[in-house]
Amino acid sequence: MSLHPFDAALLLGQTAPGHYEGHTHASYWNMVGPFGGISAAQALKAVLDHPERLGEPVSFTANFAAALAEGAFRIEARPMRTNRSTQHWLVLVSQTDPDGLDTVVLTATAVTAVRRSTWSAVDAVMPEVPAPVDIARAQGARPVAWLQRYDLRPCAGEIPQHWDGSEADSLTQLWMRDDPPRPLDFCSLLALADVFFPRVWRRRARLTPVGTVSMTVYFHAGAEELAATGSGYLLGQARAQSFFNGYFDQSAELWNEAGQLLATSHQIVYFKE
Amino acid sequence: MSLHPFDAALLLGQTAPGHYEGHTHASYWNMVGPFGGISAAQALKAVLDHPERLGEPVSFTANFAAALAEGAFRIEARPMRTNRSTQHWLVLVSQTDPDGLDTVVLTATAVTAVRRSTWSAVDAVMPEVPAPVDIARAQGARPVAWLQRYDLRPCAGEIPQHWDGSEADSLTQLWMRDDPPRPLDFCSLLALADVFFPRVWRRRARLTPVGTVSMTVYFHAGAEELAATGSGYLLGQARAQSFFNGYFDQSAELWNEAGQLLATSHQIVYFKE
Repeated sequence: MSLHPFDAALLLGQTAPGHYEGHTHASYWNMVGPFGGISAAQALKAVLDHPERLGEPVSFTANFAAALAEGAFRIEARPMRTNRSTQHWLVLVSQTDPDGLDTVVLTATAVTAVRRSTWSAVDAVMPEVPAPVDIARAQGARPVAWLQRYDLRPCAGEIPQHWDGSEADSLTQLWMRDDPPRPLDFCSLLALADVFFPRVWRRRARLTPVGTVSMTVYFHAGAEELAATGSGYLLGQARAQSFFNGYFDQSAELWNEAGQLLATSHQIVYFKE
Repeated sequence: MSLHPFDAALLLGQTAPGHYEGHTHASYWNMVGPFGGISAAQALKAVLDHPERLGEPVSFTANFAAALAEGAFRIEARPMRTNRSTQHWLVLVSQTDPDGLDTVVLTATAVTAVRRSTWSAVDAVMPEVPAPVDIARAQGARPVAWLQRYDLRPCAGEIPQHWDGSEADSLTQLWMRDDPPRPLDFCSLLALADVFFPRVWRRRARLTPVGTVSMTVYFHAGAEELAATGSGYLLGQARAQSFFNGYFDQSAELWNEAGQLLATSHQIVYFKE
């Protein structure tokens, strides 16, 4: 049985304790570099693979410093502080530039923790939408490779059909899962939090150039809840709060079909005009 | 004229390029360490003081690895990548532990950018609340020093009067400003994003121990807009989306009196039970 493309993209070889080597993967290529979600997932994978890792991810922030070039990259995952039940991580992803110099292309921080069972509650309200089986999968041109790796079924706020500059709200709701289907884990959930098309495209129906500069995911589920989700669909909802002088934000929530909120995510995105 | 306590707390001495020394400040002391907002502001100050800094803060994430001990700390602010209009920063705050070892107490990443004037829009809706002058300042026991450094005027979702375990929503709205009043800047805005009392206290009316582990602020305003805000009040709104096995999230927005959304902020917080 061949490896799922997501697992192939996340293959890391350890070169020294905490140091890994990986390669960009054609299946997750975007326009001028890899899909940001896959780069973030590779950085988290380095943390999860680390022999000193304590607990499960609670928080993860990736800063996209530069588009990765096609080919090899190195990841250093460094535990900066280990407490009794929490651990703070710094992750640096680097590549060799054309001048032969080591350059940082992505920085990330993560918090992992051993969770205890406590009182829990979800205040976010899952939107009422049709079941994924009743919604057609998004078709269209699919001009970039990584989009083929996701089964996306829009419920509301689809990508504009006409780039006519007409203003709309910035809300999108869609069912999503890996294609081919793959049991959910922390890395794939992290990547799924980045599948929304840019809010400014929705808001303005203008294809302005964009690029995420920083993305944070908070995990509201443990490995057990992710395993229970299996390869089912997640309902994702995203919207923006502010577009100001070249940068807009996006806040997103991801629920499983059973109605459990698995993650909330936030990002800030450059837009040209 | 004496220095404002906030500026006194943010005094950093450069010991080498990108290396600074600072001291915890009694005026911003919390229960077992400094107010998290002041520690985050000190880390951002190191970026702003750096001679190679490009542009203004767009994004800032602080990870609170340990409570700072009273006394001296060191900050290293390192530009990890400088592009044409954006710059990615890593900030490490460390202290000498009782064994004489250098230990990391806070990690942070920041993105600064030279903004250009673009189409802009705010989709978040500012809550309609009475003017700050018409709301009484929060009184009460004020058991910790840092709370005296903020003039807080609750509009909705006050801290529970009775710790009786009765459940409520997690929403709080309040006017806030420095005390004494001080013209707003990026550092004070960052600190103000952390003044909300813990959402789990509001949600459950239980004084469970808490601690922020990671906090992100997105700036939706430039230095000009902050200067125009002056020493006026900001309207802050905060709520949680999920409380799950020891960690809850908080999302917050901060507007000025003129109705401009200056920042959005997110954090993930440990709670004991």
